[in-house]
Amino acid sequence: NHDLQVASVDPSDREAHSGTQSSHRLLAYSDALISIIATVMVRIQQSVQLLLTAKIAVYLMTFLIVSVAWAAHIRLFQVIVRIDDCLALLNLACMMLITFLPYTFSLMATFTDNVLGILLFCGCVMVIGVIQSLIVLYAFSRPFLLNEQIQISENQNYYKHHILQVIMRVPIMCFFLMVFSHFHFPLQSYVLLAIIIFLPYISQCLKWCRSKAIVEDTPDSMLFYTYLPNEPLSKERVEAFSDGVYAIVATLLILDICEDNVPDPTVVQKQFGGSLIAALQVYGPEYLAYFGSFATVGLLWFVHHSLFLHVTKTTRFMGLLNTFSLAFVGGLPLAYQLTHEFPRNSRNELEAIQISCVIIFFAGIFQLAIWVVALYNEQETLHPYVRYGGREHVFMLAKLALYPCVALGTFFLTCILSKFSAQIFHLMEITVPFAFLVLRILVRIGLALLRLIFCPDRPDPRTVVEEEGDETRVPFNALVT
Amino acid sequence: NHDLQVASVDPSDREAHSGTQSSHRLLAYSDALISIIATVMVRIQQSVQLLLTAKIAVYLMTFLIVSVAWAAHIRLFQVIVRIDDCLALLNLACMMLITFLPYTFSLMATFTDNVLGILLFCGCVMVIGVIQSLIVLYAFSRPFLLNEQIQISENQNYYKHHILQVIMRVPIMCFFLMVFSHFHFPLQSYVLLAIIIFLPYISQCLKWCRSKAIVEDTPDSMLFYTYLPNEPLSKERVEAFSDGVYAIVATLLILDICEDNVPDPTVVQKQFGGSLIAALQVYGPEYLAYFGSFATVGLLWFVHHSLFLHVTKTTRFMGLLNTFSLAFVGGLPLAYQLTHEFPRNSRNELEAIQISCVIIFFAGIFQLAIWVVALYNEQETLHPYVRYGGREHVFMLAKLALYPCVALGTFFLTCILSKFSAQIFHLMEITVPFAFLVLRILVRIGLALLRLIFCPDRPDPRTVVEEEGDETRVPFNALVT
Repeated sequence: NHDLQVASVDPSDREAHSGTQSSHRLLAYSDALISIIATVMVRIQQSVQLLLTAKIAVYLMTFLIVSVAWAAHIRLFQVIVRIDDCLALLNLACMMLITFLPYTFSLMATFTDNVLGILLFCGCVMVIGVIQSLIVLYAFSRPFLLNEQIQISENQNYYKHHILQVIMRVPIMCFFLMVFSHFHFPLQSYVLLAIIIFLPYISQCLKWCRSKAIVEDTPDSMLFYTYLPNEPLSKERVEAFSDGVYAIVATLLILDICEDNVPDPTVVQKQFGGSLIAALQVYGPEYLAYFGSFATVGLLWFVHHSLFLHVTKTTRFMGLLNTFSLAFVGGLPLAYQLTHEFPRNSRNELEAIQISCVIIFFAGIFQLAIWVVALYNEQETLHPYVRYGGREHVFMLAKLALYPCVALGTFFLTCILSKFSAQIFHLMEITVPFAFLVLRILVRIGLALLRLIFCPDRPDPRTVVEEEGDETRVPFNALVT
Repeated sequence: NHDLQVASVDPSDREAHSGTQSSHRLLAYSDALISIIATVMVRIQQSVQLLLTAKIAVYLMTFLIVSVAWAAHIRLFQVIVRIDDCLALLNLACMMLITFLPYTFSLMATFTDNVLGILLFCGCVMVIGVIQSLIVLYAFSRPFLLNEQIQISENQNYYKHHILQVIMRVPIMCFFLMVFSHFHFPLQSYVLLAIIIFLPYISQCLKWCRSKAIVEDTPDSMLFYTYLPNEPLSKERVEAFSDGVYAIVATLLILDICEDNVPDPTVVQKQFGGSLIAALQVYGPEYLAYFGSFATVGLLWFVHHSLFLHVTKTTRFMGLLNTFSLAFVGGLPLAYQLTHEFPRNSRNELEAIQISCVIIFFAGIFQLAIWVVALYNEQETLHPYVRYGGREHVFMLAKLALYPCVALGTFFLTCILSKFSAQIFHLMEITVPFAFLVLRILVRIGLALLRLIFCPDRPDPRTVVEEEGDETRVPFNALVT
């Protein structure tokens, strides 16, 4: 019976070693964990006694550091493509320490003149480095876990040493930092910390720019573990991480609603004579704001989704821009809270609304930047439909430009009509979804108008092709997937 | 240029309609949103002034209702397999209302004698029903979005009406409930609410049991929208939902650590003479507890992952058991909090630890139940390796049974040695990961011992096969994927 079942399997798969598993779900779980940890820092900052600017700085710093850890994780599992039980458990241990990083950051931010936070952080980073080295050593001792390129390569040992070197670089520097921070002032340690963590990126970016100016001679086979901006990054995992961030941001909003907007029964009894409806009417504008904010997050996700549907390959630089965009998206719950903390029509409320506009603007503009970067190398990174002259090119531009434009418009409008700032902002949040619904029509009208103005005589080749070719259209997913 | 690009696409894909997209990422995002909403209710209950039992009841109720909404969402998108922009936006609107459901529950739980919460809940359910009906109508007006079975079917209209009927059943009952709740006591409304939501499941389970007893005559083509326990459920989405729940539970733990365990700078100055290390030592056991709890959640995920790696088809009944298991996993942060609220060695601490054991036990036992249910129909639902007599059968059983056994053992041990309950519990949490590491060896030793005791003369056929077949082993992923 057992032999029969074995025989029924495709013989081409027989070579693969048993006991190994596809790493897909492990990576999805890791992505979910890391994205939540990166985003949830916005909430943690509430409890710690900090000024707003310090809050934002700590949040951004944590988000970036957790993102760096995530990028290292992607890089590692682009080399190790299959897992077994032992690797899964080692990865869980690694995740445990990554989720502990935000706590060390909280300590650093609360006790700026104490080195303990930085010591804990460095300790965590060092242990993470050791665990990742263990993962690499284990995987190279069972080569069937590695990706094919390395599996068939003859200098596996060279790859192993190169990867170990890259992985251990930051932990070893952290070790020296630990020793150093014992003798010096903590502030210098912070600056050093930032330099250590972002140094490989900066140096490699500079190297890359120089190599672009002179000659390019990196062999294609070493396109992992290089920190080069055009190093490929798993598109699936970038999407999973982004989904996690958008999902947790959307749900943090309702968490705020649930925590703050359920009135106390005794208050209802005393102040509103037991009428729950009257008590809830006080919160009326907040429900409106919730639906508006949720729609904003949802639509930013929608734009991201539309963009990545047409992206065929993600590079490290696009990943970096995506991280920046997500960092701003992660700030939305903070902005949402700010909008409610202050009395109506106060100076502070106006500023909170303008901060929200700025956050939305940057979240959108970085999405647009991803597309612009992708266009520079469009043959490799984009689907034909959205390249220059492609059928969806203008429509995609309109989709990506809608939020930055609207946010900018709202910002200036609130500067002029500062009295109605809240109304303008909520009106914007609620009308944008409808704008997305009719965007395709708006783009067509816009294009027709432009043609009418600039070249009214020539017949329009695009619309002719489009109407004729309606039946022979190609599904772009065929190429994307 | 445009024509050339069109020609380069595989012609077999040409038939598919343009403008449609694979629904994969939309569903992943929806899964993430719903899983977070379902789990995060544990935190919301903290702020609402409720007794512990009421907290747990409300949490479980919300978890189940959100899971029902999620199951309805799966069912809907098993019929609609491709999406376009319009469907994506309608789905976001639907998600927005689903995330609002927990708030209505908070209102219901805080104001038990007021009907407003129930009215809001019914209103939400009705609007969700209307949006889902719109989605169905839109998809049936563009049949290329539907799954193939319906696309080629001749009685599409029949399917449309059947699906609309199923979708609108609960909202219409909610409408009558709204009218009814105006004239009667709210408590009766709650009971009715529960009946309405779970009625289809109960009635169909009864029907299924009856049909098992008599004859089975359901045509295979109607195996969606039936509520039958053996109706297939997308395995991918069950996994995505589970990953979301495990990820948010693991991160809620660190959120608690960050909020409660960063000491106030002024307190450190006054009570500990500025020594941060001394201040942090107070929290010592909590760090240990954090790592223990994280390991528990991570390993429960690991067991779930191992199980679903060998499951080839998920049924509705298995999905229900999975939901129960996840509901207990979602309760872990609550148990974790309880363990710290009370002074050391108090009666309450003992009870909190025992509650934790019970939660871990049930989370594990429902995972085991999934496997047992799968074994009943193993030809369809399981990979050969884990069926009766399969190579991994005993190992899988050991993996699934480890947590229930350990939790039960710890429970009774804390009853006997109540003084050392905290130590026993933390020791258990920290030794279990190592037990998983050596589990395969333990299972082999156990089997060898059993054979030695019961049939010492016969040679062991299993180990012989295993050692000989080491090179020709089949990767089970080849079958699973």
